[in-house]
Amino acid sequence: MALAKNASLEEIRIRDMMDEWVEAFETKDLDRIMSLYADDVVAYDLMPPLQYRGKDAYRKVWQDGLSMMRGELRVEIHDQHVSVDEELAYGHILSHFQGKDLDGNDIDVWSRVTDCYRKIEGRWLVTHEHTSVPIDMKTGKGMMDLRP
Amino acid sequence: MALAKNASLEEIRIRDMMDEWVEAFETKDLDRIMSLYADDVVAYDLMPPLQYRGKDAYRKVWQDGLSMMRGELRVEIHDQHVSVDEELAYGHILSHFQGKDLDGNDIDVWSRVTDCYRKIEGRWLVTHEHTSVPIDMKTGKGMMDLRP
Repeated sequence: MALAKNASLEEIRIRDMMDEWVEAFETKDLDRIMSLYADDVVAYDLMPPLQYRGKDAYRKVWQDGLSMMRGELRVEIHDQHVSVDEELAYGHILSHFQGKDLDGNDIDVWSRVTDCYRKIEGRWLVTHEHTSVPIDMKTGKGMMDLRP
Repeated sequence: MALAKNASLEEIRIRDMMDEWVEAFETKDLDRIMSLYADDVVAYDLMPPLQYRGKDAYRKVWQDGLSMMRGELRVEIHDQHVSVDEELAYGHILSHFQGKDLDGNDIDVWSRVTDCYRKIEGRWLVTHEHTSVPIDMKTGKGMMDLRP
């Protein structure tokens, strides 16, 4: 019973991290976003290349991404799942992102985000992140306009 | 020390599952592919919709995918990472897929695959899979021709 109790507390911690990710994203707080990642994070991002290895490389893509957006952002978490073990955890969500690009055009994209976590010196950090949209096999286009 | 030994044995089991996934994929053995997944798997696939919930739904996309390819397939695993805990594990790879479509055109795609595992009744099963390619933000196209 103690383990189950603890597992549920740790699950709350992981969910809190996702909420913090949303808050940091919406306020474009790059340092706060990056505080969630392990130094050796491997990220598969919406933007190329195939993979980003390490926090410095991934920070750059976050910086570039945030700089492509103007004004207010809104990020919503849907269909969240979290599983927690002693030292590893994972979670996945559908993320609904709304904002404007530098030309003032609306951006309204649903994407999929998978996060894998490791407890490092008593603190959960994201060691792997995978963000994507599906591909339309007929046109070859990334489906930025899909709705769940 | 016993734990570390065990962790390493479990890691080998997860790597064996990835090898089995490759073998089953290359031989188009749908039942063998599906034997790796949990009944309640949630998959974020290269193909729409945003998510597949449950083994039956995911089996259908595997079946459709395999039916779109003719002749021999080749799947290679690159840059593999595996992390294992007591009841959860995760792994991620770059997957290099080569084959031919129904018109005989070459397919040669690198994608990213993340797998999350849960030990269910003593056996590891994939509870979450996320497969994707990055998007070219200028053209909106899925980048099927990226190389690592």
